[in-house]
Amino acid sequence: MAALAAVSVGTASKALNGRGSMRPETRQRVREAAERLGFRASAAARSLQAGRTYTVGMITTDSIGRFSIPVMLGAEDSLGAGRMSVFLCDGRDDPIREQYYLDTLLSRRVDGIIVTGRRAQPRPPVRANLPVPVVYAFISSTDPDDCSVLVDEADGATKAVEHLLAIGRRRIAHVSGPEHHQSAATRCTTAAGRLAGAGLEFAAPPMFGEWSEAWGRHAAGTLLANGHDFDAVFCGSDQIARGVADGLRAAGRRVPDDVALVGFDNWDVMAMACQPPLTSVDMDLEGVGRAAADMLLAAINGQPAPGRHYRPCRLVARESTAVTVRPAPGTAPAPPDRLAAQPRT
Amino acid sequence: MAALAAVSVGTASKALNGRGSMRPETRQRVREAAERLGFRASAAARSLQAGRTYTVGMITTDSIGRFSIPVMLGAEDSLGAGRMSVFLCDGRDDPIREQYYLDTLLSRRVDGIIVTGRRAQPRPPVRANLPVPVVYAFISSTDPDDCSVLVDEADGATKAVEHLLAIGRRRIAHVSGPEHHQSAATRCTTAAGRLAGAGLEFAAPPMFGEWSEAWGRHAAGTLLANGHDFDAVFCGSDQIARGVADGLRAAGRRVPDDVALVGFDNWDVMAMACQPPLTSVDMDLEGVGRAAADMLLAAINGQPAPGRHYRPCRLVARESTAVTVRPAPGTAPAPPDRLAAQPRT
Repeated sequence: MAALAAVSVGTASKALNGRGSMRPETRQRVREAAERLGFRASAAARSLQAGRTYTVGMITTDSIGRFSIPVMLGAEDSLGAGRMSVFLCDGRDDPIREQYYLDTLLSRRVDGIIVTGRRAQPRPPVRANLPVPVVYAFISSTDPDDCSVLVDEADGATKAVEHLLAIGRRRIAHVSGPEHHQSAATRCTTAAGRLAGAGLEFAAPPMFGEWSEAWGRHAAGTLLANGHDFDAVFCGSDQIARGVADGLRAAGRRVPDDVALVGFDNWDVMAMACQPPLTSVDMDLEGVGRAAADMLLAAINGQPAPGRHYRPCRLVARESTAVTVRPAPGTAPAPPDRLAAQPRT
Repeated sequence: MAALAAVSVGTASKALNGRGSMRPETRQRVREAAERLGFRASAAARSLQAGRTYTVGMITTDSIGRFSIPVMLGAEDSLGAGRMSVFLCDGRDDPIREQYYLDTLLSRRVDGIIVTGRRAQPRPPVRANLPVPVVYAFISSTDPDDCSVLVDEADGATKAVEHLLAIGRRRIAHVSGPEHHQSAATRCTTAAGRLAGAGLEFAAPPMFGEWSEAWGRHAAGTLLANGHDFDAVFCGSDQIARGVADGLRAAGRRVPDDVALVGFDNWDVMAMACQPPLTSVDMDLEGVGRAAADMLLAAINGQPAPGRHYRPCRLVARESTAVTVRPAPGTAPAPPDRLAAQPRT
């Protein structure tokens, strides 16, 4: 991206600060490159009143991990464009630590707070009656008046099932994580509902275990050993799907010819290393982070948006479902570009 | 960890703030739990002079990723214990963005800056003549007077080879990432040197490719197709090692009985899902982060430690090297607890 301006770091710094001597066209080139990179005050940020600290606190309730990172990146993207600085606090799933950080952020007079993390269920509000706005990202507060930006996981499960139906699969099994995880329950219930809408049901009772490859391998073996007749598996995560792929291959089944596979998360490392590469549901976590930051900026400007805001998923098709479509007699699957369900908002 | 104190979030907050009414023993229990969790001002932080902002900036030069996260967590751990707050800035490998963030941090009068990220080679200093101390973590500055905390990758490669020698392997192949990456070059050269010290050489010319499972699978196939006689592979990363394991198994070779495997990174997701679970070199990135934070606090207190500081690696043994030791005649491998090389400092 530095190639956009083709200048040294020092020159870029001088140009952006309006310091130092340089040709006007150089300064202009750097500024234009910076604009293209997103260093432009957003409309929301420009309208912030004076007296703000232009600082936002971000608290992760679990250790910063695979799910919270893209959310943070997205939020940082939106806030940075508005020239807000981000204080990062890692709560490590520890209420004492979280309250300590909350006090630290408030004593530093942050303009607002984003709370993110991975949690199976809605969480209690970080604290009642905070003096600054709070937005929950990827997790939700149990208080429906709080503002939460969430992934519409039902939309993701619907897209997964519709994709498998569209490639002609009718005997779909489901392997997922722990049944008490809300994500696992939502994905399973939604998938079953979508199948019912097509006059179908799961090809085997849904299997709940853990979010691991080992469980996926085990589940594939169990499905085969029990003699279930299935031509596709919708998996609750990419790790599970990869385990299923390995288990099926070890038993001589071909993916996708005999069994098509769809995962969930679109975790590039897993999806690309899977044999064959894995079709998966992408939750657009960066988009969740950006939306949360935008809503926080709006709330700081006196325009809060209480309630739960759901964002759609996206299906990323790869070889694990790359088969010739042979629709069953009498069915007419929707073409791929019509598979996208509308977001619930 | 909340179980340490066994109180609600609200109670913990009140106890730590000295507010609200509660029994003295409850307040004491929460405070003791907080102490055990590390909320104790470190000696270095306590001695900070007045007038500080107690704020540190952390800039990642690449997008926050798998390597920079544990470094950040470690640094945040040390700084948080000293009650310093952390501004997070994501440079995204973009000099313009980096300079912009540097200006932002300086305008907010941070007490110091940690620069981290993943980079194949040493990087230029973020800026000359900064008014606050800078410590580089996991990456190094090209200016030898800067303070950098680094992983002793040579130590890691030495431990990998010594572990394979200790379990009786003598025909060791090496598969790694791009040859122009300093990490790949260092690990290869060190491993070759350690083998030479045992009167051995690689069982096949070292193979350089990319940091992926696909490359590992391909390399395993090539090693077998070329008829190389090898009983172990030291891999430049866990992803490569996992690919090698899959490639060997597909060709009917048993791991570890026929071929023992050692990876690098100790990335839990990869190492545990590998069949069999993978022995790997752990770079202790959280330790790197903590050490960098400690050095930054010392520098803020007027005690800088210029130069490159290397920290040792740790070998984590799992099933991919779990074989009965059959030492070759005339050799006496060191017992496992003597395998640890001394850190270079």
